[in-house]
Amino acid sequence: MIVLKLGGSVITEKDREETLDGEALERAAAAVADCDEDLVVVHGGGSFGHPHAEEWGASTTDGVDDVAGITAIHTAMTTLNAFVLRDLHDEDVPAVPVHPFSAGHRDASGDLSLPSEQVETLVDEGFVPVLHGDLVAHAGKGATVLSGDEIVTALADSLDADRVGVCSTVPGVLDADGETVLAEISAFEDVADALGGSDATDVSGGMAGKVRALLALGSPASVFSLEDLSAFLDGEEPGTTIHGDS
Amino acid sequence: MIVLKLGGSVITEKDREETLDGEALERAAAAVADCDEDLVVVHGGGSFGHPHAEEWGASTTDGVDDVAGITAIHTAMTTLNAFVLRDLHDEDVPAVPVHPFSAGHRDASGDLSLPSEQVETLVDEGFVPVLHGDLVAHAGKGATVLSGDEIVTALADSLDADRVGVCSTVPGVLDADGETVLAEISAFEDVADALGGSDATDVSGGMAGKVRALLALGSPASVFSLEDLSAFLDGEEPGTTIHGDS
Repeated sequence: MIVLKLGGSVITEKDREETLDGEALERAAAAVADCDEDLVVVHGGGSFGHPHAEEWGASTTDGVDDVAGITAIHTAMTTLNAFVLRDLHDEDVPAVPVHPFSAGHRDASGDLSLPSEQVETLVDEGFVPVLHGDLVAHAGKGATVLSGDEIVTALADSLDADRVGVCSTVPGVLDADGETVLAEISAFEDVADALGGSDATDVSGGMAGKVRALLALGSPASVFSLEDLSAFLDGEEPGTTIHGDS
Repeated sequence: MIVLKLGGSVITEKDREETLDGEALERAAAAVADCDEDLVVVHGGGSFGHPHAEEWGASTTDGVDDVAGITAIHTAMTTLNAFVLRDLHDEDVPAVPVHPFSAGHRDASGDLSLPSEQVETLVDEGFVPVLHGDLVAHAGKGATVLSGDEIVTALADSLDADRVGVCSTVPGVLDADGETVLAEISAFEDVADALGGSDATDVSGGMAGKVRALLALGSPASVFSLEDLSAFLDGEEPGTTIHGDS
């Protein structure tokens, strides 16, 4: 089984609020349609989710408890999800929506519970579940953001995915020179310099956080751009492939 | 905590496809707005879900595996859910959607798993989760119908609800004469004659099935009409109240 992340910046126009990158989304849908393996798709929020999250001060740690804010953020994400489903259906992909707000929650420590048996059953029945960055109920905080990256790592573990793909706006993880794509990473120290030092952190889904999360997975994960999506789904390892030690 | 079912026939025009009973829904929303207790709302499909389910041959036991059918049925139900949320928001109820298709599944024996920790967290955070009759993935069958009644009984148990309310088109469970509302039921034999004998069964959410399911709950359940919704939410026991022995 493959868990595929379609970056929000890949399928939307990042600088124009609630605007699809229709051409990119169609290319992604066509690539997915050619894939013969069991597949779960997760897409990010891009210009649909992020402006609303920012407006309401919502992040993975800062909650929103006004139902108007929750409605605005969640509706923007389900709207983008509906566009993704439409383009997948146009390519005859048996895609079905799975909204994380309906399934998951965080406890008071911020630990995420995201049930996956419904996703597994859908895949077993021949469907392609399509999840998305969203809000989830968070004990003591109302609701907080659940990023697409968090969903990918949670599902890759619980579904015991064979491979993880992160389709991004960059061709892979770049070396310190900023030009060469690293073919493989097996430890954070390999790329600490390139990513801003071993203390590098980012809460907004930047590359240092992605690499750390993907290193912790039990399955290999590739980071690549849309040009390489078909190659990845064909079984190749384009861009940067991250092999954790777990 | 109260788990409240709003019957699909109460809030939609049963004989006109995908048509709300706007006045009834507004009355229900106003009653809910006056409720001070923790509340989970579940609504049925009425004229939104049922015609599509029938068209695609979907029931709680007969599955649909065509993604076009799943999309038609699920979209009709999420559309009705959006109308319910809109009217609740108009009454300042902090209502949020929880779509069962995103959360639950059935195994090969047809046994339902419907996670409820997300619902519990939402209630604890002050929201009113609104679920609805839907489809769920069903091992070996594609997806089957999950009725609002099944959701109510599943949640009442897992959330350990104090009271269950079933707002219906009838004022309660009628005695064999068809005119008197029975105030209490504590065993199926009490009403077997009125409901068509002790072998009475129905797969379509009829009263015999409802009574059997409500008798099996650990919490008292009242069946009443829209006129009595406010009284129920105020703590009264209008219509018929069913006390199981569990």
